[in-house]
Amino acid sequence: MKNSSFRLSEIVDRLGGRIIGNPGTEVFQVATLEKAGQGQIAFLANAKYRKQLEASRAAAVIVAEADAELTGLPRIVADDPYSYFAKLSALLNPLPVVPPGIHPTAVIGVGAVIAPDAHIGAHVSVGAAARIGAGTVVMAGCVIGERTTVGAQGQLYPNVTIYHDCVIGRNVIVHSGAVIGADGFGIAMDEGCWLKIPQIGRVVIGDQVEIGANTTIDRGALDDTVIEEGVKLDNQIQIAHNVRIGAHTAIAGCVGIAGSATIGRYCRIGGAAAILGHLQIADNVEIASFTLIGKSITEAGSYAGIFPFSKNDEWRNTAVHLRHLGELAKRVKTMEQEIRSLKGEQV
Amino acid sequence: MKNSSFRLSEIVDRLGGRIIGNPGTEVFQVATLEKAGQGQIAFLANAKYRKQLEASRAAAVIVAEADAELTGLPRIVADDPYSYFAKLSALLNPLPVVPPGIHPTAVIGVGAVIAPDAHIGAHVSVGAAARIGAGTVVMAGCVIGERTTVGAQGQLYPNVTIYHDCVIGRNVIVHSGAVIGADGFGIAMDEGCWLKIPQIGRVVIGDQVEIGANTTIDRGALDDTVIEEGVKLDNQIQIAHNVRIGAHTAIAGCVGIAGSATIGRYCRIGGAAAILGHLQIADNVEIASFTLIGKSITEAGSYAGIFPFSKNDEWRNTAVHLRHLGELAKRVKTMEQEIRSLKGEQV
Amino acid sequence: MKNSSFRLSEIVDRLGGRIIGNPGTEVFQVATLEKAGQGQIAFLANAKYRKQLEASRAAAVIVAEADAELTGLPRIVADDPYSYFAKLSALLNPLPVVPPGIHPTAVIGVGAVIAPDAHIGAHVSVGAAARIGAGTVVMAGCVIGERTTVGAQGQLYPNVTIYHDCVIGRNVIVHSGAVIGADGFGIAMDEGCWLKIPQIGRVVIGDQVEIGANTTIDRGALDDTVIEEGVKLDNQIQIAHNVRIGAHTAIAGCVGIAGSATIGRYCRIGGAAAILGHLQIADNVEIASFTLIGKSITEAGSYAGIFPFSKNDEWRNTAVHLRHLGELAKRVKTMEQEIRSLKGEQV
Repeated sequence: MKNSSFRLSEIVDRLGGRIIGNPGTEVFQVATLEKAGQGQIAFLANAKYRKQLEASRAAAVIVAEADAELTGLPRIVADDPYSYFAKLSALLNPLPVVPPGIHPTAVIGVGAVIAPDAHIGAHVSVGAAARIGAGTVVMAGCVIGERTTVGAQGQLYPNVTIYHDCVIGRNVIVHSGAVIGADGFGIAMDEGCWLKIPQIGRVVIGDQVEIGANTTIDRGALDDTVIEEGVKLDNQIQIAHNVRIGAHTAIAGCVGIAGSATIGRYCRIGGAAAILGHLQIADNVEIASFTLIGKSITEAGSYAGIFPFSKNDEWRNTAVHLRHLGELAKRVKTMEQEIRSLKGEQV
Repeated sequence: MKNSSFRLSEIVDRLGGRIIGNPGTEVFQVATLEKAGQGQIAFLANAKYRKQLEASRAAAVIVAEADAELTGLPRIVADDPYSYFAKLSALLNPLPVVPPGIHPTAVIGVGAVIAPDAHIGAHVSVGAAARIGAGTVVMAGCVIGERTTVGAQGQLYPNVTIYHDCVIGRNVIVHSGAVIGADGFGIAMDEGCWLKIPQIGRVVIGDQVEIGANTTIDRGALDDTVIEEGVKLDNQIQIAHNVRIGAHTAIAGCVGIAGSATIGRYCRIGGAAAILGHLQIADNVEIASFTLIGKSITEAGSYAGIFPFSKNDEWRNTAVHLRHLGELAKRVKTMEQEIRSLKGEQV
Repeated sequence: MKNSSFRLSEIVDRLGGRIIGNPGTEVFQVATLEKAGQGQIAFLANAKYRKQLEASRAAAVIVAEADAELTGLPRIVADDPYSYFAKLSALLNPLPVVPPGIHPTAVIGVGAVIAPDAHIGAHVSVGAAARIGAGTVVMAGCVIGERTTVGAQGQLYPNVTIYHDCVIGRNVIVHSGAVIGADGFGIAMDEGCWLKIPQIGRVVIGDQVEIGANTTIDRGALDDTVIEEGVKLDNQIQIAHNVRIGAHTAIAGCVGIAGSATIGRYCRIGGAAAILGHLQIADNVEIASFTLIGKSITEAGSYAGIFPFSKNDEWRNTAVHLRHLGELAKRVKTMEQEIRSLKGEQV
């Protein structure tokens, strides 16, 4: 399991940047400034961790130009140490090679097309006429519905479920427990009972999307639910039917997005936020954690709406006054009139 | 996969309503007003979509009596276009016929009783003495616990887990990843450690219930957790032990309901709301999304409690003042006294 | 399925306490005061249920010293009736004995070590070099990653997924649908696309931990995510990478904890609360349900921040005034100056 080692000189040949110090320094793993030791390379993305850089016993570090002289350690100077570190970590930690082939316990439906170099794990079910792309890894216990397509170089972790007729792009990662293509929540009241509205749309997911553990993405009611390329979804996100999420938007865990909401490109949505249905959110909108978005946002920017927490007693006191805020506002208005009157002004 | 076509005359024979225009018009699918084309029928449920009706290229539409003359397209006039559309869509999109039988990879416990026309999919486990009703479909990877009963005509999507000794009614739909009957969160502190309280109740689910993907319903601590008939649960809902949900209540995604809460009939609970434990909610209560219900609601009506979102800076400003709301109220009181004093009134 | 019966005298021999009434009274099951009947023992943990004690038809009850004379029923007097009840329920309701052995449909990777008395259920996958401890039960459909260790006497309910290289302690219970060790949400923006940061840490879980259904615990980015001994996690909790949760902390359902947050020991976190990343929460902190913790808490105590709910109209009115709270505060300040001026004070 030990990673291969790379010399700093080999690293900059592949990823760019310039070396200060011994270019023959070998590293095999990334680590934090505090924990890095022999053979490990750390990074400084924020000058506030300077103290930790000083104390670091890393074999080498990645720093920005401005911080190049903060350390005497062998170092790579990069434009953006954090993304450089991401690339280097991917180089040092390649995904394990999984042997191609279909496990004998897997069940493959009639007419399903599995690329010869795909990996289909134990106890996987692939529905009739489904397609699994080149190099894609489908781990144990996954269930792929009929006529669903999973693009090339995908990675489906164990126990993922994808319903029928969905389309998953290339290089898509789906973590365990995620459910793609379940019925949207479509019901109509009729004589005291809810009628189910068949959900006949699909889920269509673009390339380079990552979907977190236990996240759910419902199929469309009539049209499709669409996740555009490069979207990154954390765990336990709920995406309702007919939502559209613009390319390269990143959404943190536990967010809920109601039906037919349209989210722009390059948005960033904090954890446990919620977005009501039939809204439009512009591109480049940032939404704070734990904020309910109850109407459309047409302008890029940062938005929030969070009740500040405090000690229980203070909170109770605030909450009581909040309940009477309308009355307080009225009393203020009355006083303003009275003061004008006292000053002899015409009220 | 192409649906069967129906003439409008055949449709009204089955579902009621009256036709204006050519009763021989054939449709095979439902669609939105915008997207509907040849062979597709759309609906107008809300007059605000009138513009889309005018531009629609649908083969036919479903309209209310009041809107009957808004279009020249062949149309069905119905009392409630939306529920009519739901019924028509169910007619045009029947669930795929699944062949009865037990997949050879399924594992069936001793004494389990599977109806001859039930479908047990690949890699399913059915516990000892469990019962699966007539026509019920249990898809790949589901696990049904010992002595659990699933009623007739049920539909369990892949990777559903139902623990032992639960009772599921007829015509129940459970989506992937749902977990029914896990232990409730029952712990008691004892000498610095939490003791687990065995959860010996069951989950009992009525007929016609639908349960969304990755929703969890815990078994009761002593008595049962009960979901009455016709309840509709969206995805990622958490229902704690000993909750009771009244018939025909509909709950949107990401809602959490704490232990021993009792929810009435015909309630509607918005997404990401939360309900504390040991509360009673009356029938016909509507709760807004993202609202915490912290005490019982005895009266039907609509309830909400959401911090309004705004641009980050404005929110911060509001939050700061909110923290000092108690002081603000005191200052207002002081001023009222001072004004009375200035006016020569007895303070 | 009928439990064994115990005489009160046998019970106090094992669990302590003293008997008032017939020590030969036999009980086989615990129940609530309302429902308990023949052979069932109930408990009174809170004097407010005294009425129910009076009406109870239980065979026996557990009461505190102070309440010992509130009933004439045979009774056990215990220091803490609730934890006594927990122990007694565990005595009366032992976990079903599961036969040791590996189900023939299970798939065991090369070099995996399964204790001879462990139970590996149907359709389980155990990765190469994984280890399953003595007496541990791994139920149907679970997937255990390569090199992951599960300690002795564990209980993994069906369809649990644990990724590679994780460490699970002794006596750990994991409920269905839980996902342990999925990648943390680590991304870096680079030329308009998100780069994935490999998540090379592990999840390390201490002894006596319980993890609820569909809860997710992400692996660390560089260092580990750590759940210390005795922690109790309810359902649908999301724990991000590099979180550390102190021993014996209990967290209710639907809570989200963002990356690198450190939670103290013996904390209690209410349902649907959320904790932002890179925070420290002291020991013995109690957090109310539905509260966002946006900064560190250094002092033990109870904290909350919840918008109080009300009828929809009242809420709207409050929300409108809340949006103008800053202006209201300014108007109050202005008036205070005017009043001072009217009173002839120097402004």
